[in-house]
Amino acid sequence: MRVLDSDITEHAQKRESLIAAERSLRFDDEVITKATENEKRAVEIVNNLRMREAKEIWKASKGRLIYPRSDFLTAKEIIMNTELYQIMKRLPKGGLLRGHTVTMSDVGFIYQLALEYPAIHIRVNSRISCDTLLPLPEFKPLSPDLVAAYASNPPLTCPDYVLGTWVPLSKARSEFVYGGPEAFDKWIIGSLAVSPDEGSKGYKTPVKVVQRFLASYRLARGITCYEPILKRSLRQTMLSLFEDGVCYAEIRVNFSYKADIWTDGSETLSHHDYLALFGNVVREVKDQMKLEGREDEFIGAKLIYTVYRTFDKDKLWWYLEDCMALKTEFPDLIAGFDLLGPEDTGNPLSYYLEPLLWFREETRNRGLDIPFIFLAGESMGDEGMADNNIYDALLLGTKRIGHGLNLAKHPLLMQMIKEQGVAVEVCPITDEILGLISPTHHPLTTLLNHGLPVVLCPDNPASFGYAGLSFDFFQAIVGSKSTNILSLKQLAKQSLQSSSLDAEEKKIALEAWEKRWLAFVDEIVSKDLESEH
Amino acid sequence: MRVLDSDITEHAQKRESLIAAERSLRFDDEVITKATENEKRAVEIVNNLRMREAKEIWKASKGRLIYPRSDFLTAKEIIMNTELYQIMKRLPKGGLLRGHTVTMSDVGFIYQLALEYPAIHIRVNSRISCDTLLPLPEFKPLSPDLVAAYASNPPLTCPDYVLGTWVPLSKARSEFVYGGPEAFDKWIIGSLAVSPDEGSKGYKTPVKVVQRFLASYRLARGITCYEPILKRSLRQTMLSLFEDGVCYAEIRVNFSYKADIWTDGSETLSHHDYLALFGNVVREVKDQMKLEGREDEFIGAKLIYTVYRTFDKDKLWWYLEDCMALKTEFPDLIAGFDLLGPEDTGNPLSYYLEPLLWFREETRNRGLDIPFIFLAGESMGDEGMADNNIYDALLLGTKRIGHGLNLAKHPLLMQMIKEQGVAVEVCPITDEILGLISPTHHPLTTLLNHGLPVVLCPDNPASFGYAGLSFDFFQAIVGSKSTNILSLKQLAKQSLQSSSLDAEEKKIALEAWEKRWLAFVDEIVSKDLESEH
Repeated sequence: MRVLDSDITEHAQKRESLIAAERSLRFDDEVITKATENEKRAVEIVNNLRMREAKEIWKASKGRLIYPRSDFLTAKEIIMNTELYQIMKRLPKGGLLRGHTVTMSDVGFIYQLALEYPAIHIRVNSRISCDTLLPLPEFKPLSPDLVAAYASNPPLTCPDYVLGTWVPLSKARSEFVYGGPEAFDKWIIGSLAVSPDEGSKGYKTPVKVVQRFLASYRLARGITCYEPILKRSLRQTMLSLFEDGVCYAEIRVNFSYKADIWTDGSETLSHHDYLALFGNVVREVKDQMKLEGREDEFIGAKLIYTVYRTFDKDKLWWYLEDCMALKTEFPDLIAGFDLLGPEDTGNPLSYYLEPLLWFREETRNRGLDIPFIFLAGESMGDEGMADNNIYDALLLGTKRIGHGLNLAKHPLLMQMIKEQGVAVEVCPITDEILGLISPTHHPLTTLLNHGLPVVLCPDNPASFGYAGLSFDFFQAIVGSKSTNILSLKQLAKQSLQSSSLDAEEKKIALEAWEKRWLAFVDEIVSKDLESEH
Repeated sequence: MRVLDSDITEHAQKRESLIAAERSLRFDDEVITKATENEKRAVEIVNNLRMREAKEIWKASKGRLIYPRSDFLTAKEIIMNTELYQIMKRLPKGGLLRGHTVTMSDVGFIYQLALEYPAIHIRVNSRISCDTLLPLPEFKPLSPDLVAAYASNPPLTCPDYVLGTWVPLSKARSEFVYGGPEAFDKWIIGSLAVSPDEGSKGYKTPVKVVQRFLASYRLARGITCYEPILKRSLRQTMLSLFEDGVCYAEIRVNFSYKADIWTDGSETLSHHDYLALFGNVVREVKDQMKLEGREDEFIGAKLIYTVYRTFDKDKLWWYLEDCMALKTEFPDLIAGFDLLGPEDTGNPLSYYLEPLLWFREETRNRGLDIPFIFLAGESMGDEGMADNNIYDALLLGTKRIGHGLNLAKHPLLMQMIKEQGVAVEVCPITDEILGLISPTHHPLTTLLNHGLPVVLCPDNPASFGYAGLSFDFFQAIVGSKSTNILSLKQLAKQSLQSSSLDAEEKKIALEAWEKRWLAFVDEIVSKDLESEH
């Protein structure tokens, strides 16, 4: 014996204290300290399950490099068959605060809708000559006279097909010679979402994955811009949310595109019409939920008015004015304002400083509550103006920060964000698939360990074949030993606290959520007791 | 005018203050605040040069995705032709504190040495049948009787060659049928270093790059284990350091391999013999420098005794005892102790806790100064024991932390490291090439912004075709706008301050370094004045 047992013990105790002291800085310290006995039991049950599945499911397939935190698109099917995922499905997840309307619509569903409406047409710009290497198609709803005029256009695979001409979707499908309707469906669905071999693992550079993703966005947009489909897909999106345990959503709607399209093919569906339609869908879904006695499960949805950061400054004034006019008319529907698009290639916030300062002042004068909810800190370089966005966003009083991948680089801003309770919208799955950062280096755990208020977001779930937040919660809990279901409780609560719900709505939402949380914990504990007997 | 100019100005001022406040937390705040007029001028000159080259050299080739911070192996040739790199070459860089003896030896040089000595033999384990897809060879120095016995072995490309048999290297070269000696040289040199298409861009998974790197390590080791080559390659390594503006080195030597090999082929070159040889080389180089009146440029070199973290705990006691015995005999040569190898697959520090605690106590009792200098925090997961290494390293009083890639995840440990002045050995180029993290997400800037004491290290420069620290300093200054040559001054100073030089040696080293720094700044400023006239 060359070392005293007491020395070994002393070292182990010091390590334990150090780890505990560090954990106490985390965002979930209070919720863990104040846990009920039932909650503690549930934590243990779920941690054991995670450990068992890590061994039996994930370690077992290590030869193929499938691990829940990496290569989401490949691992998705396996994840869905885990018990842990089933628990995540049932967990009441609060609000979904970052998601884009187009990339939240289930691609299978919108494709089915597209087949229902004769207005929807398809075209390709390169010759289809085999069943592999099919080009990306384009979609468009046409007016009745054009529908009639194009009815006899030769189908896509016919030698007579003139590249770039529109063909009725259902005709293109039934007369598809390379494998018939089945192969056609596979091609279209495959075009609307990013597949495993196209994700960050398959494509060599992030740029290519992003291009592929943007292409799928444009494709879906070619279908969902059609009013009857827009309405039904929005409705389906909201239904998918509460089916996934999400009780509220703030959906980013891009108002920089030209107007949507009415049933008659006229391209005059204004922003005002869009808001009215959005409001109707929310109301209908809420009414239906009430009828079913499930009003607690869906508090509602708002939209965040977004504009591309490629616009000229002069153009922005018009949009800001439009946003205020809409807020005046639909005070319950507009949750905030954001500028969209990659920070490195788009204009920095400082470029729009004048209209943005004016907007802040003007909304105050008009008594309108339209907080900025800026994407910032997604860019990792500090050479360009993009890095200044994070300073400008905070100085402009942003309510939340979208992405914030580079926050760890900013010690002072991290402190400010913590003190001011500015939530960070973190999107681990989108970040991984778009190749923005490898899952092992994703800053989620860093932000949580530093005690920053994070809200977990899916960003573009439909493009990656899912809906809601269950997969994002799953990634969070398997990604870090320090994260348990009480951490997820805190994340869920924060999503409601950091939302644009007003004080009264927030109170109601939190109370309803709390009730569901208690039932969720009870279910875990009682199921476990059952299985023991 | 809808917004007052004063509002715009006020916002801009607030942003400036915020950025300044954040910069003041950085590691280089003091050195920038206290800059002389000459230093300020030099900062401006170098910043302008960086900006000009960013535009003229790096942005110009953007189609090929060549940017100085990404894909080092491809960009290296371009970097070498920049003026900024020429300045980095001349910058006095202080000490090189993390580098492995085998992967610091110039591969072209050791190959030339291998050709000089008839003892060096080569073999392959798979048939060579064309000039592409050549296998990785193996090397070994043989004893004179084996040299005689194998002299007439058929060469590698002969149909009679028996796989796995040794052939004299020079014979293999001269009788190489797929392109002659020239193609043979290309093959061998290519095997000893990682090439651009084998770096993190070319290989799909980090695991493969690491395997390729480890193979090149083993290959080089097969040559440099031969005493006459070992001596000459160590000497060449040290000469390459001061040619690069490095005045001191702490080189990690892996003592877990079996003994090195004497000229007569006997495998009995002990650890003691190694230390004696190392000491002789240091002395010879210092003497030569003194003769040339350049003693300020090379203070010396020490070695860090390292052992693989795959060893059984029981085995470690022997090595720790060996390390102390060597320190007693060569007090000036041993700088510290470390455990090597990937954290995720090797044993955690806690596994060796008993011998390590004993060593700490025992070195104290024997009056030996052998600090721990542990690799820790390289692993990004927090599931396994690997994440505990960073806690254990600090609790065991580590003098520096090797790699520390995951430090941003540990807010409390970052604070401790800062307060205790534990330096972090950061290796941006090795990390990129081995695919540990993409350059855009490398934590170097994060650590610098948080004010942690960093020492910039090359780790395995020869495997990636370079020597010294110029490329690492280059990557640091092009990688972040906040980093200027005064930041590099501070990094250089820190490398000496955080070294294992004793107080007296440190004082001498810092004084000599300070003199060279002043000359360096003067040179930049006067060259600029010249070019203006």
